[in-house]
Amino acid sequence: MKTFLDCIPCFMSQALRAARLASDDDAVIKQVLDKTAGFIQKMPMENTPPQTGEYIYSYVSEITGNRDPYSEIKKLNICKAFELYDYFNKWLSEQPDRLKGAVMLSIAGNIIDLGFKGQIDIENEIVKVLGRFSDMPDFEIFKEKFKQSEKILILGDNSGEAVFDRFLLEFLKNKPNTVYAVRDIPVINDITRVEADLIGIGDFAEVISSGVKAPGTILNQASDKFLDIFNNSDMVISKGQGNYEALSGVDRDIFFLLIAKCHVIARDLGTKTETPQLVYKKTS
Amino acid sequence: MKTFLDCIPCFMSQALRAARLASDDDAVIKQVLDKTAGFIQKMPMENTPPQTGEYIYSYVSEITGNRDPYSEIKKLNICKAFELYDYFNKWLSEQPDRLKGAVMLSIAGNIIDLGFKGQIDIENEIVKVLGRFSDMPDFEIFKEKFKQSEKILILGDNSGEAVFDRFLLEFLKNKPNTVYAVRDIPVINDITRVEADLIGIGDFAEVISSGVKAPGTILNQASDKFLDIFNNSDMVISKGQGNYEALSGVDRDIFFLLIAKCHVIARDLGTKTETPQLVYKKTS
Repeated sequence: MKTFLDCIPCFMSQALRAARLASDDDAVIKQVLDKTAGFIQKMPMENTPPQTGEYIYSYVSEITGNRDPYSEIKKLNICKAFELYDYFNKWLSEQPDRLKGAVMLSIAGNIIDLGFKGQIDIENEIVKVLGRFSDMPDFEIFKEKFKQSEKILILGDNSGEAVFDRFLLEFLKNKPNTVYAVRDIPVINDITRVEADLIGIGDFAEVISSGVKAPGTILNQASDKFLDIFNNSDMVISKGQGNYEALSGVDRDIFFLLIAKCHVIARDLGTKTETPQLVYKKTS
Repeated sequence: MKTFLDCIPCFMSQALRAARLASDDDAVIKQVLDKTAGFIQKMPMENTPPQTGEYIYSYVSEITGNRDPYSEIKKLNICKAFELYDYFNKWLSEQPDRLKGAVMLSIAGNIIDLGFKGQIDIENEIVKVLGRFSDMPDFEIFKEKFKQSEKILILGDNSGEAVFDRFLLEFLKNKPNTVYAVRDIPVINDITRVEADLIGIGDFAEVISSGVKAPGTILNQASDKFLDIFNNSDMVISKGQGNYEALSGVDRDIFFLLIAKCHVIARDLGTKTETPQLVYKKTS
């Protein structure tokens, strides 16, 4: 997905939020905003938003000297998500279609995303999102593909959300070729190998770095190993908005599980903001 | 009031909103955003926000060729405010203290302000604001000063709001030295001489231009005539957020009538956002 004009004020807001987490010094934070403003002037609108995101979050790290401003928030979100695990596991056990329930929880977990707003009340937000599901017309294709596939690749998104991906990963225990890809370095609150280890993703899947330093899986930055898996998996499940932005124009079958958190994405998906989505994009 | 870091993403949002009203061409709108981004990099944080606003809205005019993007919206807001006039006049006639009611309506009219968000349902918003008034501890001083003063200067803010200033101006009919100051050129939806004529402000007060091209009365831009009146009035009543931002640090008795529409202003005023305020600032 290309950059829209509405993304530009949002880039400035994101820069401010991340810089504030990384530093208490207003002059330092202003430097981050200035550098972001400078980048906006030369940024091609054809870039996907995560490409710009990579620059913004690298400015935050370089200028403030803090390479993981969301570190504490990620840990707090993961702890909170684990606290809620039993509650939602019980909810899941009551669902007529447990796989569908697990997909819903995995999508609902995407609300734990600090890329777009401040800290949230996770429990309430997830309950609200679960109540907002309507039809998932692509679920039957998802289910079929999920059962048939030997090699499944999941592209992780934010760290707290990844705890809720465990509900889905439970169904893949007997598929030894499952791979869960994470970011190469800390960027926003996205999952890296550190958080994947905390969450125990390795109990269900092989955890690999995508090689990407942006808050979305930009393929021309990806490692050869990742690209090999991406191209040769039977099924790719992409979590979250950043991965959607990076991959929605790529010529490969992908199932996108996300919540549209801004009207730019919602418009692109033909839906309303804050609507949970399972979207199947086929090769052209 | 100085510029806060939170103002910076807001400047970009304002530039986008105004540029979109002025042009349908995304490339042209991007030019406005780029120029705004360039200004942000060199902008002194000691500037008041309206000083930056002046640059932003001048970029919109220069780059798009549209010097009054809010022209139609201003007219629509004025018409809507006149439609509601009888309804709120009746409300006013039922108030135990009619001057207090008129002050409340004049403040509530400040909600019609497109500097901070898109178009709004004016009637609903005004009713909501009227319900949000609590104490006005400075009202008794205001009332005393209002009765005693011969020369009263009112600093106008947005155009629709100015219709609601008529409720207050009704009390000044017998004070021939009342002056109502407007912006020198169109900036956001602020009142200029054109809208003052539409509203009939001249029936109640002498309408003058402040000489200021910014969305707030920046004194070092003001005309000599305005400064003379500003310095020699018995009472200055300043409407809205932009005038507050420009004048809150000025060494002169001023009554500020406004709604805090962002958390930066709310923090500066020691209140919550969307709270209507009558604030008396005395000379030090």
